[in-house]
Amino acid sequence: MAMAPGIYHHLPIVSSNEKGPAPRFTDTVIKPRLLEKHGQGFQGLHLPQSLSNILHLNLKPHPLHVHPPLFNINHSDQRTPTSPKEVIATKWREVHGSTNWDCLLDPLHPWLRREIIKYGEFAQATYDGFDFDALSEYCGSCRYNSNNLFKELGLEKNGYKVSKYIYAMSHVDLPRWLERSHLLDKWSKDSNWMGYVAVSDDDESKRIGRRDIVVAWRGTMSPSEWLEDIQGKLEPVGDGDVKVEHGFLSIYTSKSDSTRYNKSSASEQAMKEVKRLVTLYRERGEEVSLTITGHSLGGALALLNAYEAAASLPGIPVSVVTFGAPRVGNAAFKEKLQQLQVKTLRVVNKQDLVPRMPGIMFNEGLQKFEVITGPLQSVYTHVGVELKLDSQASPYLKHGFNLVGVHSLETYLHLVDGFFSATSSFRVDARRDVALVNKACGMLVGELRIPECWYQLSNKGLVCNSYGRWVKPQRDPEDIPSPSIDAPMLSSC
Amino acid sequence: MAMAPGIYHHLPIVSSNEKGPAPRFTDTVIKPRLLEKHGQGFQGLHLPQSLSNILHLNLKPHPLHVHPPLFNINHSDQRTPTSPKEVIATKWREVHGSTNWDCLLDPLHPWLRREIIKYGEFAQATYDGFDFDALSEYCGSCRYNSNNLFKELGLEKNGYKVSKYIYAMSHVDLPRWLERSHLLDKWSKDSNWMGYVAVSDDDESKRIGRRDIVVAWRGTMSPSEWLEDIQGKLEPVGDGDVKVEHGFLSIYTSKSDSTRYNKSSASEQAMKEVKRLVTLYRERGEEVSLTITGHSLGGALALLNAYEAAASLPGIPVSVVTFGAPRVGNAAFKEKLQQLQVKTLRVVNKQDLVPRMPGIMFNEGLQKFEVITGPLQSVYTHVGVELKLDSQASPYLKHGFNLVGVHSLETYLHLVDGFFSATSSFRVDARRDVALVNKACGMLVGELRIPECWYQLSNKGLVCNSYGRWVKPQRDPEDIPSPSIDAPMLSSC
Repeated sequence: MAMAPGIYHHLPIVSSNEKGPAPRFTDTVIKPRLLEKHGQGFQGLHLPQSLSNILHLNLKPHPLHVHPPLFNINHSDQRTPTSPKEVIATKWREVHGSTNWDCLLDPLHPWLRREIIKYGEFAQATYDGFDFDALSEYCGSCRYNSNNLFKELGLEKNGYKVSKYIYAMSHVDLPRWLERSHLLDKWSKDSNWMGYVAVSDDDESKRIGRRDIVVAWRGTMSPSEWLEDIQGKLEPVGDGDVKVEHGFLSIYTSKSDSTRYNKSSASEQAMKEVKRLVTLYRERGEEVSLTITGHSLGGALALLNAYEAAASLPGIPVSVVTFGAPRVGNAAFKEKLQQLQVKTLRVVNKQDLVPRMPGIMFNEGLQKFEVITGPLQSVYTHVGVELKLDSQASPYLKHGFNLVGVHSLETYLHLVDGFFSATSSFRVDARRDVALVNKACGMLVGELRIPECWYQLSNKGLVCNSYGRWVKPQRDPEDIPSPSIDAPMLSSC
Repeated sequence: MAMAPGIYHHLPIVSSNEKGPAPRFTDTVIKPRLLEKHGQGFQGLHLPQSLSNILHLNLKPHPLHVHPPLFNINHSDQRTPTSPKEVIATKWREVHGSTNWDCLLDPLHPWLRREIIKYGEFAQATYDGFDFDALSEYCGSCRYNSNNLFKELGLEKNGYKVSKYIYAMSHVDLPRWLERSHLLDKWSKDSNWMGYVAVSDDDESKRIGRRDIVVAWRGTMSPSEWLEDIQGKLEPVGDGDVKVEHGFLSIYTSKSDSTRYNKSSASEQAMKEVKRLVTLYRERGEEVSLTITGHSLGGALALLNAYEAAASLPGIPVSVVTFGAPRVGNAAFKEKLQQLQVKTLRVVNKQDLVPRMPGIMFNEGLQKFEVITGPLQSVYTHVGVELKLDSQASPYLKHGFNLVGVHSLETYLHLVDGFFSATSSFRVDARRDVALVNKACGMLVGELRIPECWYQLSNKGLVCNSYGRWVKPQRDPEDIPSPSIDAPMLSSC
């Protein structure tokens, strides 16, 4: 099936390798060795029907998603696409949501697909760089300083440069959402690394048609914390009737003079740096955009940040790209964001429960999910435009119920990579490394032989020192979190 | 407390750093930073009393084992002792058990302590080199070829050279004790790497007074498999009334012509290589000893191997050093081993349940342990001399109930290192790296900040290939198990 010309009436047609909707798999697809040899079929659905019915997940496979028994998993000798290549300078506003992504989402335009993945990888970096080790004195910080983050995570070719780290108070009302070291002499008793501000370099700015400032917010990987902790208590913010969830606002705005990293709140840190960069590049006569991204809790923080930024930076186009984000505020919040021209692309995997919150709870006593159809769901309102994904669409994923797997950001990025339209199968030309999906979950089918939750340090970070003893090495001085190091001079960007 | 002269009447007194029993900790002990700062006491016992009573573990702390609140854990800048240094050539027979270690065990002679740890590290290498990864096509093999094993594990200075790998059939009656790959195109459907034969090099032979042939047998790390699978079915072996546990014998003797690695049994492989080496070095006019070692199941296999070797190699002194090994055979088996002059040093941690088996079972239905005081305990008989250790003696270990931790070989080696006598505290001069204890368990106190189960590969063995994709790398050809590579030419040793 060729791409219908003119389907993207306001964006040029790309005639690259983009093959459009995946054809039905044919005999020319390379058969994986294992299947070839033993002729084993592809494993089907395992979700308990009862749970599926309760949640109305509609996990029956889509007619076009019934996968043939053989599929091409032998990509390991094919190059992963690097950062986006097409020059989108003349059409960046549409890609950035100026037309509410009208007609760009189904089928998904390849330019937009690459941009979504680019921003998703900014959000993923907040997990990959995070020190989750409760035995580390730096637990809750970023393992690398801001100059090295992208390089250490293999993202040095993304065309952006981190300019500032953002910290949030960890003594908020949602204690399990933030990490704390078990140690007493840790880097900070009070704060967590919560994300960063980055800005496009000259080459990337040329390609994308403007100087793009990115704010990436870290979320939480484990949805179980959500299901247990979400309170759904609305709190007024700003003028009028606008209200948002108390816990999100608490993380975004808490500060204390007695701390080292949160004398100012996450909100103030992010806004100060964004304003600095906006001023810097506007003074140079450049066109500037702000793109805010986050996954899960990070998506909620992204929306709060966009609300604040759009209100205080008139004339700057503000877009939000969230992945698996919950509802954040009431109808007045949604209306205010619309008035402020904040463009939100909300990427949602239909099996993921977090975007249904607040409004669905896990009852620990009864060990089951309860859909609260009453006040919460009707009060909390999603904003923006939805790009709906479906785990079932990917032949690389197990289709049993996997609360963590369907919420994982890497699963989202995999599904975006394979998405062409709601009614077509997974893209044959999808080339993002599928192994990444299993970084922190176990969603990949066994035939791929990728271990579950494989993203781990050698010997949990212990190294054998010159005395032959296994020790936790000291961080390089430049990788020790420091408020001063994280605030580069204006001239450095 | 100085060491009483003449306490080792048949071995020389060592006047090295060996300080004898640990003095009570005094103020001169370096205080760890954390404790110094916060004055926190040492955590006490956590074992549920009911379980303790059921098992008669007598976990009340020994009067001398009541640890002071402060202790020296700051060893990370002190050199770990390398391989044993004293020349024990003139007294090797005593160290090897010729006098049944009479008066060498309590207090423990430092020469013997170092030899026990040396043999324990041979057994530990069978775990550290083993490929446990069920997604690896080489699951159940050794990750390194026999020429590289010691080097890869940091044991290149131990003065021995591996001469042969031993494989055992994995299709035996105790399926959970052996590892099988989940894959179909794996290196071997039928076999597990089960240990190796090694021989002392010229320098080490000079130091220890003879050419020492070692057979190290791999065991199983998880005692839960024992508790569920042990059958206690006796089977006759050899002449007379000698009977041994059916499962152990099955692993030791199974073979099949249709396999690649077990056309001969583990028994035949080990004995063939041992005989080859005995012949080789005897023809050179050298004195030869055989030392067989193993932990857990490996200890049981070591005893079976010693029984066979002593019967078929008259005149060769055969010793066995086992760690946490179960009972293997009946009283006739014990008597036969005595007749054959097999000297067995059985190192036992009193909290470890495995040495109580067969005779103690885990009742899955009732979720509790059952001591079977009837036939099994009276039929199965331990052999040799016991060196009794006590987890409670170490101030570095948590003292709650930890089935895996108290059985772990690294815990054993730590306790041997700290053992002076049954009535004295942990040796102040113990210098073996305590971090090793937590390789595969979580026995170390939190103050040490050593992660639990830290022995792990970076990214579970995945590496980013030149195409930017995360893949399981192919093994170096020389590290792929091969029966021919594992059988070096006679001249090579």
